[in-house]
Amino acid sequence: MTIGILIFPQVEELDFIGPWEMLTMWNLVAGGPKCLVVAESPGPVTCAKGLSVNPHVSFQDCPELDYLLVPGGQGTRTEVRNTNLLDFVAKRGSKCKAVLSVCTGAFVLHAAGLLAGRKATTHWGSLDRLRALGDVTVIEERFVQDENVWSSAGVSAGIDLTLAFIASVAGDEAAGEVQFASEYYPSSRRYGSHHDTHPSAPAYARDA
Amino acid sequence: MTIGILIFPQVEELDFIGPWEMLTMWNLVAGGPKCLVVAESPGPVTCAKGLSVNPHVSFQDCPELDYLLVPGGQGTRTEVRNTNLLDFVAKRGSKCKAVLSVCTGAFVLHAAGLLAGRKATTHWGSLDRLRALGDVTVIEERFVQDENVWSSAGVSAGIDLTLAFIASVAGDEAAGEVQFASEYYPSSRRYGSHHDTHPSAPAYARDA
Repeated sequence: MTIGILIFPQVEELDFIGPWEMLTMWNLVAGGPKCLVVAESPGPVTCAKGLSVNPHVSFQDCPELDYLLVPGGQGTRTEVRNTNLLDFVAKRGSKCKAVLSVCTGAFVLHAAGLLAGRKATTHWGSLDRLRALGDVTVIEERFVQDENVWSSAGVSAGIDLTLAFIASVAGDEAAGEVQFASEYYPSSRRYGSHHDTHPSAPAYARDA
Repeated sequence: MTIGILIFPQVEELDFIGPWEMLTMWNLVAGGPKCLVVAESPGPVTCAKGLSVNPHVSFQDCPELDYLLVPGGQGTRTEVRNTNLLDFVAKRGSKCKAVLSVCTGAFVLHAAGLLAGRKATTHWGSLDRLRALGDVTVIEERFVQDENVWSSAGVSAGIDLTLAFIASVAGDEAAGEVQFASEYYPSSRRYGSHHDTHPSAPAYARDA
């Protein structure tokens, strides 16, 4: 079993490395699938905040995938018009047991034809843009599962998405092993009041 | 102002990319310092779970640093005997306004002479090893600040450490901007019972 994690220029770092950490930990501590970072071409990819990462495989070399995760970032604004990338996501994604998006990766899934008619979410700053697509039911939760299509809110939300996905595939005990190994018992501290007072703050983050 | 983020072979991915995301977001949305990934030599570094990353600068090219963050991972077991790396951490770290460690990065700070006599923490699996050093007061919290030396628990805890560090340097509003932009309102969901029943589970993670 293999999970492909797509990257592209201006991909947001934590969007894919949060899930990467959880998925590779699953592989290490609880027998989860092998994980590969996949890019259109070989060679370094510069992320949105300037980190430089070398993919393991290009589209051409990429083996069969059982799962495909599509992260977000500023680069998605370009990639939703990259027919080579969309073709890869459409062809590979439609054969996968599940596809997952983080943040604005939802727009790549949509442009590849995998999100129409689904419930989904994205980064709070792009919820209205996701609604405007017209054929997605936008849910303001930390992450959303609609059958075999999973999507999360912005950036760090990919970690929560991935743990829930692991629990769904392998059970709560496996997810618990991953959570413990990566010591993911995050603080609930909220700094400032943006989560509650910003007009675009997502429903799930607002104070009760 | 510049923050250096140290990497080395077998560094744990999320240990440094969680903080990297928060710190570069601080730079983007609230005028935080510039961030650089620093390694001993130029060229790709393979992380603990197989991600390949290209550092921005080598020890030789590294500009003056105002802050230095040292992540953990299996590689720290080797790096605590790497005199070139320890020399870099000791010389640069002692000139910094603050040094921060994530996970087993605490052992690198200690080997570089920057942790003796301090309160600190590390990954739950290495708490006893940190106590055995004899000159560190081990605190089982998500993160610990002892004056200008900060340390966090394992892997994902570096994110909480970094937000608290940003709040300390630039105030709660700046930390709130970063938290909102990275949508860091994590789920409190705990899978399985390791956080409570495992004999090495850290005090802060246990059920009340």
